[in-house]
Amino acid sequence: MAADIDEQPAGYDRLLSADHAGAIARVAAAIAERRPRHVVFTARGTSDHAALYGAYLTEIRLGLPAGLASPSAVTVYGARPDLSDALVVGVSQSGGSPDLTEVLRAARASGALTLAVTNAPDSPLAGVAELSVDIAAGHERAVAATKTYTAELLALLMLVEGVRSGDGVLPAEERDALAALPELAARTLADPTPAQLAPRYRFAAQLVTTGRGYAYPTAREAALKLMETSYLPALAFSGADLLHGPLAMTDPDVPVLAVVGSGPGGRSMGEVLPRLGERRADVVVVGSADVEGATRMTVPEVDERYAPLLDILPLQRLALALALARGEDPDAPRGLKKVTATM
Amino acid sequence: MAADIDEQPAGYDRLLSADHAGAIARVAAAIAERRPRHVVFTARGTSDHAALYGAYLTEIRLGLPAGLASPSAVTVYGARPDLSDALVVGVSQSGGSPDLTEVLRAARASGALTLAVTNAPDSPLAGVAELSVDIAAGHERAVAATKTYTAELLALLMLVEGVRSGDGVLPAEERDALAALPELAARTLADPTPAQLAPRYRFAAQLVTTGRGYAYPTAREAALKLMETSYLPALAFSGADLLHGPLAMTDPDVPVLAVVGSGPGGRSMGEVLPRLGERRADVVVVGSADVEGATRMTVPEVDERYAPLLDILPLQRLALALALARGEDPDAPRGLKKVTATM
Repeated sequence: MAADIDEQPAGYDRLLSADHAGAIARVAAAIAERRPRHVVFTARGTSDHAALYGAYLTEIRLGLPAGLASPSAVTVYGARPDLSDALVVGVSQSGGSPDLTEVLRAARASGALTLAVTNAPDSPLAGVAELSVDIAAGHERAVAATKTYTAELLALLMLVEGVRSGDGVLPAEERDALAALPELAARTLADPTPAQLAPRYRFAAQLVTTGRGYAYPTAREAALKLMETSYLPALAFSGADLLHGPLAMTDPDVPVLAVVGSGPGGRSMGEVLPRLGERRADVVVVGSADVEGATRMTVPEVDERYAPLLDILPLQRLALALALARGEDPDAPRGLKKVTATM
Repeated sequence: MAADIDEQPAGYDRLLSADHAGAIARVAAAIAERRPRHVVFTARGTSDHAALYGAYLTEIRLGLPAGLASPSAVTVYGARPDLSDALVVGVSQSGGSPDLTEVLRAARASGALTLAVTNAPDSPLAGVAELSVDIAAGHERAVAATKTYTAELLALLMLVEGVRSGDGVLPAEERDALAALPELAARTLADPTPAQLAPRYRFAAQLVTTGRGYAYPTAREAALKLMETSYLPALAFSGADLLHGPLAMTDPDVPVLAVVGSGPGGRSMGEVLPRLGERRADVVVVGSADVEGATRMTVPEVDERYAPLLDILPLQRLALALALARGEDPDAPRGLKKVTATM
């Protein structure tokens, strides 16, 4: 898992290289030409969080309605919604989930433009989709996905910005911003803070993660990593939903990891942090926001749209360090398999 | 909270009465006439779980793509997706959340047909929407929503079936099935099992809920009720997602509440329960499925589509009984307000 985590800057570099960027640009141009009216994402587990990021990007950057579809409506109940105006995107590192493959097959039959985003270009999912993007993350050794998650994020970002440009080719400003990410990711990974903070959670009985907007997928993915590797019940809430009920659960014994950037999503957490303070919750802030008096895992400041590619890195390292501190084997979580086959 | 819970059979009766059913039928007919191409739900907290049920119904019963939209894309990032083919549904008991009101206002401005489903027909949310449905649940005393949740479920069900019929009027078979619900709900509430099971969780440090398809919103809502009233960290997973990582977290010390009906969604849990058994998880089955050897909270058997209107009842009562057993005041959860205002 440590090796997978450390490979992420190189993975960003690879995906941004001419070959892979060119392949993504061609897919983006094909999507732009078909002018879908709305976008439906379908994914499971870690990839579901990448899909959630893709949905935010789609709504905010493309002005297209986007949602996450539950595969079970199709695979369990036989629903066959009319998708003739839709782009349906299946996100899966293995491309091997039979339910996602079935959703994409049904979507294509009902007229959707279909796209598979996978780390396995020869997978069944890529095979049934009309378009396919290879996230090129290389073999992932650990069961807990890390480098395939961030490669999915970057591929979706390049894809959405390519569709936005119209011809798939990214504007120079966007290319420059993306080109800085490998170095920023390497710098983020060099920060010793996550390993230093791990002992704080050695005996935690549960944990809450929270974030809004682009930071919400990061909060969800951080919670899943902590559950998979440290068996720590970790509850992820959007900052707004937290105030709707789960806030009651927080108290000085419930640690909170708040993902707070410097953009609009981070600023909108301004109403959440004081409420956590009133409940005397133990809050650690992850991200670029300079929250006064808070314990922080600092991440370089970038446009909020890019922050998910950096903010998750210290959280992956925290999950790894905490698993080791708790005497668990993060490379072989109990009860889990790398490819999960459900229908 | 106990009084709110007990009023649910009468609430079903009221909503099914000629006056309210007629009003819902007129809204359904107006929607059917406009032929939306897809449906976007927006909601927070408990109402988000009702919206999730609405999304399943929309996909399965109407063959229309449906998704849940995050308000923050609109309210925090200023996204203005083109919604000219869409029906956008805001679900909120109070109708007083400024963010949902803003989402519906923006959606209407961008061409969407908009609908508010609320317990407050004079609320801002109902005011900005073109169409409005009154769930007629009466004043809800407790902060933790119970009777407004099930009234939202029933209103969405009547609405979807009305759109399906084309003229808003429910087929006789559907009317008969719905007419049986108040009596079935009363019978479900008379079962003493939830109060008897509450002591089992007196010292639980966390809890997992799970279900698939129509039962997944029930699992989500049960988890929220337990968090709101008993401050018990409760993690809800679709049966499929549970196998993708969180399964590692379950062991004999983590109680699992599995919502399992007798239809396709319940049968699809057939692959999940044995995996929980391998991990020696403490499983209690809620619903109509006769799972061999399992501790159960039994609910009368109905078509799976109606099951969410019954399955949540013993879970609400469990949350109430557990809060009392843990010395908490379920009528005044710490840190919560009835109307949560976020932007």
